[in-house]
Amino acid sequence: MRHDRHSPIGVFDSGVGGLTVLKALIERLPLESTVYLGDTARVPYGTKSPEVVTKYSLANAEVLLEYGVKLLVVACNTASAAALPALREALPIPVVGVITPGATVAAHATKTGKIAVIGTPGTIASGAYQQALASIRTDLEVHTQACPLFVPLAEEGWVEGEVPRMVAEKYLSGGLLSRGVDTLVLGCTHYPLLSTIIQQVAGPAVTLVDSAHATADRVAEVLQERDLLKRERLATERHYLVTDTPNRFIEVGARFLGHSISGARQIDLKLKG
Amino acid sequence: MRHDRHSPIGVFDSGVGGLTVLKALIERLPLESTVYLGDTARVPYGTKSPEVVTKYSLANAEVLLEYGVKLLVVACNTASAAALPALREALPIPVVGVITPGATVAAHATKTGKIAVIGTPGTIASGAYQQALASIRTDLEVHTQACPLFVPLAEEGWVEGEVPRMVAEKYLSGGLLSRGVDTLVLGCTHYPLLSTIIQQVAGPAVTLVDSAHATADRVAEVLQERDLLKRERLATERHYLVTDTPNRFIEVGARFLGHSISGARQIDLKLKG
Repeated sequence: MRHDRHSPIGVFDSGVGGLTVLKALIERLPLESTVYLGDTARVPYGTKSPEVVTKYSLANAEVLLEYGVKLLVVACNTASAAALPALREALPIPVVGVITPGATVAAHATKTGKIAVIGTPGTIASGAYQQALASIRTDLEVHTQACPLFVPLAEEGWVEGEVPRMVAEKYLSGGLLSRGVDTLVLGCTHYPLLSTIIQQVAGPAVTLVDSAHATADRVAEVLQERDLLKRERLATERHYLVTDTPNRFIEVGARFLGHSISGARQIDLKLKG
Repeated sequence: MRHDRHSPIGVFDSGVGGLTVLKALIERLPLESTVYLGDTARVPYGTKSPEVVTKYSLANAEVLLEYGVKLLVVACNTASAAALPALREALPIPVVGVITPGATVAAHATKTGKIAVIGTPGTIASGAYQQALASIRTDLEVHTQACPLFVPLAEEGWVEGEVPRMVAEKYLSGGLLSRGVDTLVLGCTHYPLLSTIIQQVAGPAVTLVDSAHATADRVAEVLQERDLLKRERLATERHYLVTDTPNRFIEVGARFLGHSISGARQIDLKLKG
């Protein structure tokens, strides 16, 4: 399908987490139309293999292309870590992931040169943040920690109180923050919901970096470069697609987007192989 | 594919949880060959809709039929709650779920007539336990609670200590156990891993019911009725199939099965619609 500056921006994630990126995108580029796809029938991606995450990502992209999107945002760290090269090879439009924008902010924010990255097991095992940070600055010391329970905590809405605090202490106090780290990258789009607790456990000397705003800035840059920015207030549309029934997405998603979602359409993915 | 008494028993689950049922089955019927399928590319089922869980269950069953299984065990409470009628209609072999066996044990164990059932959001929302219990005894009082964080805790191996205790207290102390309940059904195959903590929180007056052994007994009965029990010690085989890469299944699965898994084969599901 052809696209021009009036075409929507496509955004996908394994589920609701990417809505934190969509939120930043809408704030940064309020005139743009958006189509968001949450692969709720297969969520989560963070504990699955790179092969399977790549297969799901290509299928998500194919659906969004049918909606005529002019740019694709991979609003999921695990999918950005596993599938960016395959997506860029397969698609005729620009693809923006969340890892390089977040890594860039972190590399410029740190004073001690010591950065911690937390994420899903898939993202951490991929080494994508370590690689992105090393390509920006060669003098950084990077420490990583997978935090698999943060996603279910955020989805359950348990974002304050004793349980998330103890989980955060268990993940973060085991050496990750005891090495002069002054910057902590929230390497999963679910984690901003837990940022209050994470900041309390990390202490005031540590700056939290969330890639949502940096990703929105990068999208604005790419559209500007290609003369694809929408400049009119007319006909700005928001579409939401999901692969499972919409109820839970609409209910849980509102917490991530910061306002209610009026409706979402259920679709089927065409999975190959 | 034709089957006879030498054919294997097929068992499927969304991932590793059903291995607690396989373990009971191997103890009860050690001569039987088994084929276990964990749908690790789509795990978990417990937060997904009945429609999607039914679609995945039918695809799992189709793979196991190709292995010539003589009986199918649905070793997942969510899939038993959502998909048993569809599976029984579609398959030419007997299908045994985990809900009726567990409900039967609970209905006979209770003295106060007050039973609590905990499970995934999908299982609890389905009302399947309430229905199964009511069909066995009409005088029961049934209280239910969804415990979505128990699955990730069990998979992460956080089965003792402060975090699981506080999560269990948060789920169970909010009225569920304060009504004269003397029997608590672990309505998810992951929960037996957390039974020590759950028993501590529930107190010694409450009997925990886990459907693994009751399900194994039911399988033995059905095979006996149909003269399909394998009686020879020869050629007893164990096969493990997964839909994502096998590494994580082999690593995490050992905790559920109680011994190591030598290998698992990755397969693709044929999903329809």
